[in-house]
Amino acid sequence: MTGSGPAADRPHVRIVGTGLIGASLGLALSAKGYRVSLDDASSTAAALARDLGAGVLARDVTDAPSVVVVAAPPDAAAAVVARELARWPEAVVTDVASVKRSVLEELQDAGVDLSRYVGSHPMAGRERSGAIAAQADLFEGRAWVVTPGPAANPEAVAAVRSLGEAAGATVTQMSPEEHDAAVAAVSHVPQIAASLVAGRLRGLPAAAVALSGQGIRDVTRIAASDPTMWTQILAANAPAVREVLEALRADLDGILSALRDLDEASGGDGVGARAVLARAVAEGNTGHARIPGKHGAAPTLYATVVVVVPDEPGALARLLRDVGDAGINLEDLHLEHGLGQPVGLAELSVLPASVEALVAALTGLGWRVHD
Amino acid sequence: MTGSGPAADRPHVRIVGTGLIGASLGLALSAKGYRVSLDDASSTAAALARDLGAGVLARDVTDAPSVVVVAAPPDAAAAVVARELARWPEAVVTDVASVKRSVLEELQDAGVDLSRYVGSHPMAGRERSGAIAAQADLFEGRAWVVTPGPAANPEAVAAVRSLGEAAGATVTQMSPEEHDAAVAAVSHVPQIAASLVAGRLRGLPAAAVALSGQGIRDVTRIAASDPTMWTQILAANAPAVREVLEALRADLDGILSALRDLDEASGGDGVGARAVLARAVAEGNTGHARIPGKHGAAPTLYATVVVVVPDEPGALARLLRDVGDAGINLEDLHLEHGLGQPVGLAELSVLPASVEALVAALTGLGWRVHD
Repeated sequence: MTGSGPAADRPHVRIVGTGLIGASLGLALSAKGYRVSLDDASSTAAALARDLGAGVLARDVTDAPSVVVVAAPPDAAAAVVARELARWPEAVVTDVASVKRSVLEELQDAGVDLSRYVGSHPMAGRERSGAIAAQADLFEGRAWVVTPGPAANPEAVAAVRSLGEAAGATVTQMSPEEHDAAVAAVSHVPQIAASLVAGRLRGLPAAAVALSGQGIRDVTRIAASDPTMWTQILAANAPAVREVLEALRADLDGILSALRDLDEASGGDGVGARAVLARAVAEGNTGHARIPGKHGAAPTLYATVVVVVPDEPGALARLLRDVGDAGINLEDLHLEHGLGQPVGLAELSVLPASVEALVAALTGLGWRVHD
Repeated sequence: MTGSGPAADRPHVRIVGTGLIGASLGLALSAKGYRVSLDDASSTAAALARDLGAGVLARDVTDAPSVVVVAAPPDAAAAVVARELARWPEAVVTDVASVKRSVLEELQDAGVDLSRYVGSHPMAGRERSGAIAAQADLFEGRAWVVTPGPAANPEAVAAVRSLGEAAGATVTQMSPEEHDAAVAAVSHVPQIAASLVAGRLRGLPAAAVALSGQGIRDVTRIAASDPTMWTQILAANAPAVREVLEALRADLDGILSALRDLDEASGGDGVGARAVLARAVAEGNTGHARIPGKHGAAPTLYATVVVVVPDEPGALARLLRDVGDAGINLEDLHLEHGLGQPVGLAELSVLPASVEALVAALTGLGWRVHD
């Protein structure tokens, strides 16, 4: 395929970097009727993305792109953006790095005209990487943050917003500084906390680790993340991460000081120290309540029903089939497995009005149920 | 009912404190044929537990118990244990407080003969409290840690172990110090980390909080816990919590110092600083991998299949019914909702050998599936 013929009527998006994000975006945009051209430092990677249906190879296209998407790692993004801005003097250029201020500053420091550059951050990812893991709906239902710098012109901002919408994402807009501060608090610092809590398990006796319950499993789930990727992200967002982490350390020092008082007092009253502990947990309640639930709204207060599930093939599926047959919409499901025993607990979240019917239906079918 | 007649042949367990744990234990032991007598400072609470089937009121029983279970809060447990040891000179006495060393030390300091005392910690709980939330299978599949002190005699230890086994729990044994160090690392410090990370969300703009993804949701789930209960637990376990938390703070200081280097360097290489960040995340990988999966074994490596689920009544149930109909056992299910969009992603964990069949079955039924 070339840029001539009827295909030329459709907008041409050039994607530089055909890893997971670049290839997925190519799939999503191709499905929406865009013409997508693919470029990558590795010609094998570009050819793989093409074979998966993400677009055509850049060398097979003759016309200039209207939008260029740079899907390179954070520390390479600025240089590629500068090169693409120079190469395509009419195109809008965006990048998809997960940290925004450092990319913009590097471009500003290089004296590049940034009227056609608008950074963005599609908040999507998977455990797997590379084009082979790409999927056209990777961005569906995810946030796509558009972060224009002071020099960006409104048409460029609109073009990048349209791209995110075409990919099925929910587009929001903030400054690069606001974006970096936000992801420091909602993503980067939680990652550090999970890694540090999990790291403390290394030296523990096996019998102690065996007492791990659902709490620590949840807290440390993301501690399984890739060190190389996270080192890049944390390094690129060092100032914003540091600010949140310094505040967290001040809170931690307050708790340590309270624990020291209680330890030394042992038998004393430690009233002030207890107040420090209670306040830290209460402030956690307040912060946790701010996390939006489905649809960006405040979390609905679902009722939970706990069902005992034998750990045998098909048991959970049978339970959920029975729930479906009862005509009840599951809002969430949480599985909990204890230590050693061949039984699990399934915590079903449903609308409060459905609890009675659900309990009656499941009890009638022989399930052990607790609301 | 009284202690006379055929019922007197069955062992008599006296439960002091009929909240969630006491009443649930009464239900579990009654179902296993034990005679259970119930006592509580509140006669209403005791009567409620009796009405729920947890046992008979202590005042209606004439014979001495063979085992007394003290189900009182950590800071009241030692005094009640001492009183019960004195009152029933033949009985074995245990308590169920979630912190063990402080209870034992308080008894030792009071000069009580502790040959018949064996502390224990059934690791079960619910969001709800009180006898009304009690359930006979609360302990099924959970760990029950038995923590004999140096003065405990072997018969007393055996009696308390039997009690945990009768309740359906998996009994493990360690010293009070080992127990307190273990729960500090696997429960108390994770709680503090979750509360502190969630607490940092308080001052954030709503648009920033709206970027919260599944990572921070998992890390902060337990941040919704009760401040009063946690203040008691943390205060009672101050020395052990402090030790783990001091080590965690040293790790945190290393990260902060690395971030400071990278921030000031900005443009410099920061190689040493990056190594600190990479090591922290890698150590988190190592610690996380130690957490046992189902059945106390190392986590099985399940394969995950991601399915796009429309957010409409019955959609998730329909998916899970289809999974069940395909004859595939779900090992775990993880729901993810993005921001704003009426679509969710269900991540199904199955044995690797089932992936192909699952993908084929679901795709055939019209689901959008990614393995």
